[in-house]
Amino acid sequence: MTAVDSIDNGVNVQALLEAREALKGAPEAAQFTWRSTTRWENGVHTTSTVKDYSGLGADHEHKAESTFVADHPEVFAATDNGITPIEYLLVGLGSCLTAGIASVAQNRGIQLRSVEATLEGAHDIRGILGADSDVRNGYNGIKVSFNIDADASKEDIEALVAQSQKRSAVFDALTNPTDVTVEVV
Amino acid sequence: MTAVDSIDNGVNVQALLEAREALKGAPEAAQFTWRSTTRWENGVHTTSTVKDYSGLGADHEHKAESTFVADHPEVFAATDNGITPIEYLLVGLGSCLTAGIASVAQNRGIQLRSVEATLEGAHDIRGILGADSDVRNGYNGIKVSFNIDADASKEDIEALVAQSQKRSAVFDALTNPTDVTVEVV
Repeated sequence: MTAVDSIDNGVNVQALLEAREALKGAPEAAQFTWRSTTRWENGVHTTSTVKDYSGLGADHEHKAESTFVADHPEVFAATDNGITPIEYLLVGLGSCLTAGIASVAQNRGIQLRSVEATLEGAHDIRGILGADSDVRNGYNGIKVSFNIDADASKEDIEALVAQSQKRSAVFDALTNPTDVTVEVV
Repeated sequence: MTAVDSIDNGVNVQALLEAREALKGAPEAAQFTWRSTTRWENGVHTTSTVKDYSGLGADHEHKAESTFVADHPEVFAATDNGITPIEYLLVGLGSCLTAGIASVAQNRGIQLRSVEATLEGAHDIRGILGADSDVRNGYNGIKVSFNIDADASKEDIEALVAQSQKRSAVFDALTNPTDVTVEVV
């Protein structure tokens, strides 16, 4: 067993490297569709469910269906039955970058002991309220701070985080525009 | 009681209109900070929590702390303990647009009976795998389909949905770029 073999962050890097090679010659298989359904409850309170997705030329189901409640807080005169929709973006970003750090660390032979990300999204709510048309509706900016304990130098840890950003689906989705089509059926 | 007064989608539009007027003269109070923390569990499995936020010049807490699990599915050689990070973006988008529809409907005197959104995100995973540097990491596009039962014409329902997009925090965050800063502390 080499030093790198003894590193275990719980990521099967070998399978990911094999998938990368396999999908280079099979672009159709690489086309995934992720799905969710949102149902209106009352007011701005909604319930969203996620179960099915497609990819590798087949339909799949997560092991379990997940349900997510969203609402607005009481300071917006709402019922606060769950977090706000925009907070779900922070959950997605923090989990994506952290998963990437674990994967890159495994690939580089760096043993992680703990990773914690703290996220802050700055939001001027005059946009969504229509109080000032020069203010955007979304975040003015998001700050992510990582606290990482690993068998590596600060420089190597910073390089892990940089590589995770470079390959992060959610970091890309937030920092670059995505085409969103909305229709009524 | 007028016809509009009898409409009840559970949204306190009066409070929102008052907030809009009040915040026009108090831009500092309109600055909200939404927060989350993500903790690495193992592999690409993470747990994120959301509880505190700031706004209206004070610190606040949601009524309850919410916890969200993310993971990758078994087809990515992972443990599928929860949905993927990029699926959280669909949850945020569906809940934000649906909340907006309820708010706009209330303001326009349209009684909603049911609203359901189906979301699909197209994702070419060659990007995140590093199999093709021309493929982006995030979604190639997202499609949202609304099925709405309301006391209104199809045209009025489509106008509701259009106005919701125009004021949606998450729709803006996904269709326009946001500055994301990542640091190691």
